[in-house]
Parts: sequence; structure tokens; C-alpha cells
Amino acid sequence: MNLIVDVGNSSVKLAVFQDSKLLKSYTSSIENFFEKFQEIKKDYPQIAFSILSSVIKDTSELEKILEKETKLYFLNENTKLPFTNNYSSPQTLGKDRLALVAAGSLKFQNKNLLIIDAGTCITFDFKNEANEYLGGAISPGLQMRLKALNHFTAKLPLVDLDENVPLIGDSTRNSVLSGVLNGVSAELDGIIDRYKTDYKYLTVILTGGDTQILSKRVKNSIFANPNFLLEGLNYILEFNKTQ
Amino acid sequence: MNLIVDVGNSSVKLAVFQDSKLLKSYTSSIENFFEKFQEIKKDYPQIAFSILSSVIKDTSELEKILEKETKLYFLNENTKLPFTNNYSSPQTLGKDRLALVAAGSLKFQNKNLLIIDAGTCITFDFKNEANEYLGGAISPGLQMRLKALNHFTAKLPLVDLDENVPLIGDSTRNSVLSGVLNGVSAELDGIIDRYKTDYKYLTVILTGGDTQILSKRVKNSIFANPNFLLEGLNYILEFNKTQ
Repeated sequence: MNLIVDVGNSSVKLAVFQDSKLLKSYTSSIENFFEKFQEIKKDYPQIAFSILSSVIKDTSELEKILEKETKLYFLNENTKLPFTNNYSSPQTLGKDRLALVAAGSLKFQNKNLLIIDAGTCITFDFKNEANEYLGGAISPGLQMRLKALNHFTAKLPLVDLDENVPLIGDSTRNSVLSGVLNGVSAELDGIIDRYKTDYKYLTVILTGGDTQILSKRVKNSIFANPNFLLEGLNYILEFNKTQ
Repeated sequence: MNLIVDVGNSSVKLAVFQDSKLLKSYTSSIENFFEKFQEIKKDYPQIAFSILSSVIKDTSELEKILEKETKLYFLNENTKLPFTNNYSSPQTLGKDRLALVAAGSLKFQNKNLLIIDAGTCITFDFKNEANEYLGGAISPGLQMRLKALNHFTAKLPLVDLDENVPLIGDSTRNSVLSGVLNGVSAELDGIIDRYKTDYKYLTVILTGGDTQILSKRVKNSIFANPNFLLEGLNYILEFNKTQ
């Protein structure tokens, strides 16, 4: 069994895999990682391998715990990956984006693939049919847009996300919700269309915390999979076991 | 001659009109308003009327100066406007949006009109053929998105706006630029398309500080007019003179 550990800016996502099957996923704070790890080990004592991906700098405490009880793979620029990285600055490429592309290149070999991860930021990552990663884009996520409209203006309130929003907002709250939710939906569809102009045969994956709210609003055909990054890390772990 | 005064969050835009013709426009800080006003009066001593629109709370100093030397119209919820306001909370509707819709209803009577103002925020405002204002949307502007990506993440840098951006960014800088500039362009086109679905005959105005950089990237047919708000305020002034 594999334990997947994805460290974000404010929380840690964990998942237990048996071969390629996700058995259970967890969320933990960085501070409570040890307790959560003990809980998971109790549920799944067969865990023998782990992989750690992080967007924060210091994960030495987490590494110690994982190294003691599992064979740990640490995702970094030296990890063997099943694609060619044409990014001009691979050392500044977020490990989360690296994991997404790795997942994409393993699950969608020989396909033009656009991976959209809608979380704090919305990241776009493209790999071509030759399994070459070319780069992509980074845009503010839903929550970030709501926060920014409040933070960077004198008068706009902080609006809570609500799915129930018309095209034409008839109040300040509905105007903000329409601008953010309809805005992001239109942006995703427009960007997908631009990729389709350049790459006729294109597969699109939508993942990340805002998958559900956005997938029903995007007109283009997409595969919605909120666990794509976790599955990707499991693929990378399996790929590296056999190297 | 009319003096138009548009007070924003951080600066004041002024413009001198002869009838409906813009003669010259100026920008001033709020602090240096008196000096700028004297300079303009020296250039155009024939100024007899003025109108003041503001998104900040206290403009009493500016009002005193304008009232002393001109007949001043102050844009507020009591100003006579040539459209029906169906906004559910007219008291919270930004004065800048009020001015844009007034301009639209005077210049494009009996048309379905979408006004997009791309500045700190991107505002969308729609009035129908019956000159009824229905509301719209508020979304983060180009600079706000660049700032938010830096402010609300641990690792992303503050990127300067640059027009030279590919669809697929191959570095962190180009990824951010693509996400922001291609993202906003796609959003504008997608939102315009959604209005066109509901209103077959639609006129679209693009105005505000980012008019130029965005107008060449929007595929939909638009009227680009960076001075629409100033022209609108002049229209409102002329409209109220005759009431």
C-alpha cells in the first residue's frame, strides 16, 4: 500500500492507495501531521511506501516521520518523470504542477492534454502528444478573486461564494458573484477554445477543490476529477518503484 | 464650457467640454486639485458649469472650490438620469457605474447596451432597449489580478504587465502574464457571448484605463472608447441644465 502526501500552503492532503485504487483520503494541518499519520497507519498497517510533494520550503519533520515507517520518495527536480520538461525555469515550476503533468503523461500518453487545477490559483498545464511539457498559465482562483475585490478596493465587501448567481447581478453582492463565478467559467471555456484552435485533438482535465462548482458551468467537454493530483502522485511512486 | 470632475480612489480625472466636444483632459491628485483647477481655469476661463462624480466619501473641499467659480452639479442618487434604475440597492451602486449607464442611455437610446469598464475592477453594466438598467458584474482588473497572485500566495512574484505574452507561458513570469492577460480577454469574450445569447441585438462599449491593451485582444465586435465615462458625465450635465 502507498501513502500519498501533498503539502499545500495551509494544509496537507493524504491518500491511501492499493495499487492504482484510492482507498481513502484525508486532510490534516501541518502541525497535526504526526497524529494524522498514526491514525492512518492504524487503519492501514500495510502501508509500506510513501511519496511527498510540497509547495512549502521546510518539510524535514514530515520527512523524518515518513522515512522512519515507510520507503519515502520525495518529489523534486531529480525525481524520474515520464515526460520531457521544456519549461525554461524547471526549478521554479511548482511541485503541484509537476505532479499534475506526471499524472497526465502516465494516464494520457500520446495525447495533447490540458490540465486545469482550480484551487487557490487556477493553473493551466499543457503537454503534447510527444509527452513534452510546454508550460501553461496561472490565474487567480475563485476565493482569491472574492478576497482581492474586497482587499484592493475601498468599498466592496467580502462576498461568500454562492452557486446561485444570475448573469446580470442586481446588487453589489450579486454583481461580485457574477463577475467571479461567471467570469472564471467564461475564462476556462475561452482558454480551452484557444488551445483547441492550436491542437485539434485535445483532452482536458479539470481538477482541484473547485472542480465541482466549475465543471457544471464549463461548456467544453472535460474530464472532471478532483483527485487527479493524488492519483498522479501515486502513479509517480509506482513509476519510480520500477526504475 | 463644462468642467467634468471624476474622483476615483487614488486620482482625479478632469475634462473640459465645449458642448459635446472634449477639448482637453487632465489627471490630478486629490491633494493638488486646487492648483490643477486654477491651471485649467487659466487655459479655459469660459468654464461656467461643472459636474462632480466621486467614489470616495468626502469631497467637500473640491465642492467648495467648484461651487465658488462654477454652477456645480453633484452626481448622486437624486440626480435626474435618463434611464430607469432596476438595481435592487441603488444607494450602493457606484457613481462611476451610474455615470456609465447614464452616458449609455443618452448615446445609445433604444439599444441593448453592455458597458465594460476595465480599470482597477472590470465592471459590466447592462441596460435594455427600454432604457432600463438591470445591473451587471464586478470582476478583478488586470493589475488587481497581478497583485493578488503575489499577495495571496507564498511563492509567486509580482509581475509587471507586458503585452507580449504567448498562450503557453514557459516560465513563472510568462505563466502569470498568460493567466492574467489571456484570462481577462477570454472572460470578456465569453461574457459578451452570454449576453448575445439573451439579447440578439447588443451593442458593446469597452472603456477605462485598460481599453487599449484589451480591445485588440477581444474577438467580439466592440466600440472602444477610453473617454466614455467623461463623455457620459458631460451628457448628464447637459441633460440636467435643461430640466
